Amino acid sequence: MAGHDDGKAVANGIPPPPFQLPTPDSPDVITANMFKLTELTPDDRKRFLLRNLVAHLHSFVRETSLTTAEWDQTIKFLTRVGQTCTPIRQEFILLSDVLGVSALVDAINNPPENDATESSVLGPFFTEDAPDVANGDSIASEGKGEYMYVEGRVLSVDGTPIPNATVETWETDANGFYDTQYTTRDRPDCRGRLHSDKDGHFGYRAVVPVAYPIPGDGPVGELLLGIGRHNMRPNHLHLMIEAPGYRKLTTAFYPEGDLYLESDAVFGVKKSLVVKLQTIKDEAEARKRGFPKGDTFKLLQRDIILVPEDLAAKAFKEKAEAAAKNAAVSL
Amino acid sequence: MAGHDDGKAVANGIPPPPFQLPTPDSPDVITANMFKLTELTPDDRKRFLLRNLVAHLHSFVRETSLTTAEWDQTIKFLTRVGQTCTPIRQEFILLSDVLGVSALVDAINNPPENDATESSVLGPFFTEDAPDVANGDSIASEGKGEYMYVEGRVLSVDGTPIPNATVETWETDANGFYDTQYTTRDRPDCRGRLHSDKDGHFGYRAVVPVAYPIPGDGPVGELLLGIGRHNMRPNHLHLMIEAPGYRKLTTAFYPEGDLYLESDAVFGVKKSLVVKLQTIKDEAEARKRGFPKGDTFKLLQRDIILVPEDLAAKAFKEKAEAAAKNAAVSL
Repeated sequence: MAGHDDGKAVANGIPPPPFQLPTPDSPDVITANMFKLTELTPDDRKRFLLRNLVAHLHSFVRETSLTTAEWDQTIKFLTRVGQTCTPIRQEFILLSDVLGVSALVDAINNPPENDATESSVLGPFFTEDAPDVANGDSIASEGKGEYMYVEGRVLSVDGTPIPNATVETWETDANGFYDTQYTTRDRPDCRGRLHSDKDGHFGYRAVVPVAYPIPGDGPVGELLLGIGRHNMRPNHLHLMIEAPGYRKLTTAFYPEGDLYLESDAVFGVKKSLVVKLQTIKDEAEARKRGFPKGDTFKLLQRDIILVPEDLAAKAFKEKAEAAAKNAAVSL
Repeated sequence: MAGHDDGKAVANGIPPPPFQLPTPDSPDVITANMFKLTELTPDDRKRFLLRNLVAHLHSFVRETSLTTAEWDQTIKFLTRVGQTCTPIRQEFILLSDVLGVSALVDAINNPPENDATESSVLGPFFTEDAPDVANGDSIASEGKGEYMYVEGRVLSVDGTPIPNATVETWETDANGFYDTQYTTRDRPDCRGRLHSDKDGHFGYRAVVPVAYPIPGDGPVGELLLGIGRHNMRPNHLHLMIEAPGYRKLTTAFYPEGDLYLESDAVFGVKKSLVVKLQTIKDEAEARKRGFPKGDTFKLLQRDIILVPEDLAAKAFKEKAEAAAKNAAVSL
């Protein structure tokens, strides 16, 4: 027998199901059989996810009477989304972002806790190669934009300072581009990793970030055009804070006044994350802060308040159990 | 400004929406904002699809409290599905197939009409390069499997013969492989295109098809393993029949007795499409039918009954309007 190249078509060794199924002669029987087959899924959580996925997917097709042509376009669209992904571009995350799914997953997994700093979407521009910087250092090379100094304390919800918390931070330059968007990138820029000091303080030099469009040359860009939506994100500074015993916080601060705050293409902004940038015009202060030129800089002062892990886990579990009561299909 | 390679990040020129949105501070507001933004979609049908997609997608995430880790796994899975697609392999269709979505779309778009031949899923093995064969000719080269003769008439639902209908047909060989699955393929085999004669008759030589596994070496194969389902299709003969003024029919005949008829991995079988293969043991008859060797062959006799296009369109429209009344979200 000759070789074949359309995938290894090998039986997976699982026998026919140990129950009787009618032939799937109608939409109702197709859906019923698909549900019945989920009983074969051994893992409880996976079965719950599968059953609810099938419920919603089949309901979508049935309620809209999706045409064969529309199904075909959807297959082609999803294929293009997958094939647009590269090691430095994630078009499926972008699709999830613009449909509000990423923000929803984020909001559900990080329910607000009293005064704790709220979360925001990670976005596709985080990298692992941010350089370590000391408190007071700059994460941006000279000339990347208008000076901004960022400072605050990392605290627990009860006000206790958290020393040695890891603060990862990244942002666009004045052109609205992340370093990874330049073909000429030879090292990280406008990103850094620092640690809070013994009193929880952290502070670093950066630049004022700029609003920017998410990639518009792929299938997700075409989708947004087709559904009449802009592809802009308001300007923001990303932060990811980790400390042992606390829920990891992925968030961003959004300077007030941006045109796209409410209609952020990826639903990332929360009111509590909108910040005021103070303008400091004081040459001595600028030198003291380490800025090499001029007499003016912006100041972003904001404490970061983390939630203890056990408290966060309890809050998520309670909400998840309540939500599951409304599930289309139970376990 | 240097070039950038992470997609052309260019504003699409659409202004912020002409209505006020609250900042998306909670799951409820994220979903509400996403719905509100669908009002910007100009096309009615597209807006209806988008609104119902969002309703079901957000409900799925909320009812299951999808975790960040599960969301991440889903993104990676979908990316792999897209990247497994090649010009001769369509893993997204396979995913749609094993979740019952392809069969559901097929059933909804081709509601049964009295005695008309029912439809079945197209599958991923149709090609455009099937050779033209005359009635009585063989679609399979010698040695590809057990002899089978296929014959019938193409008729309208009122019994009128339909002359010159195009009959495309394709199948596996005795190894359970389509020609495209062989790396050595230099021409089409086990596939052909013929036309009904003036009385609607068609007939051709073929081989008895064999049950086979759908590709198991990609993400969809892994999914089936993980949810405890076999990846087999019962043996079948594909047919696609077209005649001017009639609904195009994509179907398949499934010989009775196959172990996987009811649990077909892609939900393709309908009871009315299960056929009996007669065994003919008659050397003279075998020669008369054009088989070069032996005294035995299988005979598949089956008329194909098409639905006039206007009747089919009316039936689909009525059902679609009724289904839309149950939609999660209206226009």
